[in-house]
Amino acid sequence: MNHSRTKALEYARRGRDASLAQLTEFLTIPSVSQRPADRGNIKRAAEWIAARLRDIPLQKAEILPTRGHPVVYGEDLSAGPAAPTVMFYGHYDVQSAAPLDAWDNDPYEPVIRGDELLARGASDNKGMIMACVAAVEAAARSGALPVNVKFLIEGEEEIGSVHLADFLRKHRELLACDFVLNPDVGILGEDLPTIYYGLRGMFMCRLAISGPSRDLHSGGYGGVVRNPIHALCDLVAGFHDSAGRVVLPGFYDSVRPITESERAEMAALPLDEEAYLEQSGAPELWGDRDYAPVERAGARPALDVICIDGGSPKAAIPTGASALVTVRMVPDQRPDDVRRQLASHIEAHAPASIHWELQDSEGFPASITDRDAPAVRALARSLESVWGRPPVFHRSGGSIAAVGQMQEILGVDSVLTGFSLPDDRVHGPNEKLHLPTWGRGIQTLVHFLYDLVEGADGR
Amino acid sequence: MNHSRTKALEYARRGRDASLAQLTEFLTIPSVSQRPADRGNIKRAAEWIAARLRDIPLQKAEILPTRGHPVVYGEDLSAGPAAPTVMFYGHYDVQSAAPLDAWDNDPYEPVIRGDELLARGASDNKGMIMACVAAVEAAARSGALPVNVKFLIEGEEEIGSVHLADFLRKHRELLACDFVLNPDVGILGEDLPTIYYGLRGMFMCRLAISGPSRDLHSGGYGGVVRNPIHALCDLVAGFHDSAGRVVLPGFYDSVRPITESERAEMAALPLDEEAYLEQSGAPELWGDRDYAPVERAGARPALDVICIDGGSPKAAIPTGASALVTVRMVPDQRPDDVRRQLASHIEAHAPASIHWELQDSEGFPASITDRDAPAVRALARSLESVWGRPPVFHRSGGSIAAVGQMQEILGVDSVLTGFSLPDDRVHGPNEKLHLPTWGRGIQTLVHFLYDLVEGADGR
Repeated sequence: MNHSRTKALEYARRGRDASLAQLTEFLTIPSVSQRPADRGNIKRAAEWIAARLRDIPLQKAEILPTRGHPVVYGEDLSAGPAAPTVMFYGHYDVQSAAPLDAWDNDPYEPVIRGDELLARGASDNKGMIMACVAAVEAAARSGALPVNVKFLIEGEEEIGSVHLADFLRKHRELLACDFVLNPDVGILGEDLPTIYYGLRGMFMCRLAISGPSRDLHSGGYGGVVRNPIHALCDLVAGFHDSAGRVVLPGFYDSVRPITESERAEMAALPLDEEAYLEQSGAPELWGDRDYAPVERAGARPALDVICIDGGSPKAAIPTGASALVTVRMVPDQRPDDVRRQLASHIEAHAPASIHWELQDSEGFPASITDRDAPAVRALARSLESVWGRPPVFHRSGGSIAAVGQMQEILGVDSVLTGFSLPDDRVHGPNEKLHLPTWGRGIQTLVHFLYDLVEGADGR
Repeated sequence: MNHSRTKALEYARRGRDASLAQLTEFLTIPSVSQRPADRGNIKRAAEWIAARLRDIPLQKAEILPTRGHPVVYGEDLSAGPAAPTVMFYGHYDVQSAAPLDAWDNDPYEPVIRGDELLARGASDNKGMIMACVAAVEAAARSGALPVNVKFLIEGEEEIGSVHLADFLRKHRELLACDFVLNPDVGILGEDLPTIYYGLRGMFMCRLAISGPSRDLHSGGYGGVVRNPIHALCDLVAGFHDSAGRVVLPGFYDSVRPITESERAEMAALPLDEEAYLEQSGAPELWGDRDYAPVERAGARPALDVICIDGGSPKAAIPTGASALVTVRMVPDQRPDDVRRQLASHIEAHAPASIHWELQDSEGFPASITDRDAPAVRALARSLESVWGRPPVFHRSGGSIAAVGQMQEILGVDSVLTGFSLPDDRVHGPNEKLHLPTWGRGIQTLVHFLYDLVEGADGR
């Protein structure tokens, strides 16, 4: 192991408490991107993290505007043009902490309890950003940075990264890099370092049904006109067959099959039926029995209505009803195709007694990364150095807009990992960060900076 | 025509503007029974109408408490024990005026535009109460009242008359009468005086579906656990067959068949498909084709989900979803039977991947009145005196809890009519009252007081 790496690992170890103190300060800023009222907090959080990047020190750290919340950008290219460039992705915004009374403590007054730091954003994503900052700082202060680094820390991840694509297009050259390190997905268990090589994509639209021109007294019209709530339920009920498969025409045509080796890998993960039952609290699992739950969640598409709404307790047949339809897509499904399949299915099944419309369609495709890419192999070595075992490779069922957009617009793959645990209650009350895992994460990221240039033999 | 009747008709005609001024004042009180915040307005409205009853003058007018909003009770028994006793039913509460921005004017600042008075409650039901008050006052001030009169004006009609049954049981003797005049159903058209001899009953409950023990990230669990929204839609979709018939087991078993003469009468009403299409603004009619729309609305049962709710725009599979299921029952269906049929249908069709529950069941049966009862015949004569044509007899698809409860608890039938028109936008924005029809209504009610005792020959 070279001298700089050893120094940097030691620097990070000694600096852990200082890094924790900084993270704690960062967590006191309620930078909730959903609430217009928090615009000031969003600004404060952006300024806070930009200042931290300058302190590393990086050559440059600045706040760049978007049509929404700004992006914090940092870079240090002192390793020179021959060295690879890694871009660390993160987001300084957090999910709302509501309902507050479900928290044991104020979500913005971080508390350490045993091995855990409790606060909104502790895991998602401020803890991860600060792990990257700590690792880069450790390397920068232990000799020269071995690679060029960039930081892209956005403020709208929790609201769908709505202005990120525009930002990427506008700053394509500035953001040029060899790959992105995205630590926003966590690991599968305390002793299970994980690299995610696939993410599902996301399609979303509103299916709006309309019928009568005004709310109709259900006494005067019940049995005479089609109730939009019933028409909507008929359509939603018709999206799946009795085996749990989606019946939109052509829905599975472009779905990339799961390979035998992927199948074997997934079967080895600690994610059997029992685990899903326990984690979900559902009375029973559900879905296409031709695939195991872990396959259905990671590598098969799913259609879910996440919100349905119609009528009121007034005894009336309402003028309309609507459903938010989402599809978690897998490679190689495309949002536009899914929209067409949905529209053609509804066209074929909607009765003439109502009108329907698909509104506000949006989406981005799934992404999948080459597991043999140098950065992926480097990260695998870094994880093994710290955990003492090679990482598992997994496909996440979740969707990160940034990953697909960077692939599409910047032409760069993301290497996905993270140092949050499945029980960190991300998005929920009492969100936590497991500090020993976080510490291992910082060590891993220090290794990573050197593994990227030193190769397998440098260990 | 006897002298008192002539005087009373003239008194009512001359007093029309004064009655209208009083109604206008009454309408300024936002006595919305649904909103706890309006408790003060409910009290004000009760006091206002009690004071009006005293001014008629009646021998007695008082405010009687219930466990909810109070009942205003009035009586004048000066006609003596040999004369019949009519009880006027009404309700001083109104539906919420929300959404306020859908109104052209403030709903509680009545405006007269041409022949129309616009305000919340103008038709439903303050205008009708004041027509009864004006008629009784006209008779009282034109000699002795020809019949004994009682008034029962409740404050909870718009929330299902939740405490009325208790009230009727408690005051059974006080409320003894020969029949009830209920002017809460309107007439079929400006030139079509109408007596309703049937009402549908009402069954309502909440079907609650629950699944996972917490909101689940739809990326991590989509395709793996049953989404309660989908399970609910499946169940709701399964309540009807493709012909629009309700498939609950035994649902139609106790339904009283429509007679041939009823069928002929209904066919003669100006309520053909075209009329329903126009009134509803629906793209197409819907329902069991074995029955005409007017039959389906008045004399056949209907199942409608009036409210459905589940999830949020957050990308999560929610813990639950629910639907408010209503059934408009006809004779001789019973609420308890319908609840059992619903439960047994769901029991047979609900999957093991969710839990379900029927919550907050409530209901009251349909009612049907003898068309040859003396009060019905008297009202028919009164309507003919004013409109110059005999009334049509019709069964309403609506439900009035008070009617069934009075039949059951007091043993008295209700004679149902009204002087609001089908386009009065009852419960909706810009509710109106057609003043010429209202004036005819007052004249009709004056006639009615005399027709009750004078018989067919007294005209």
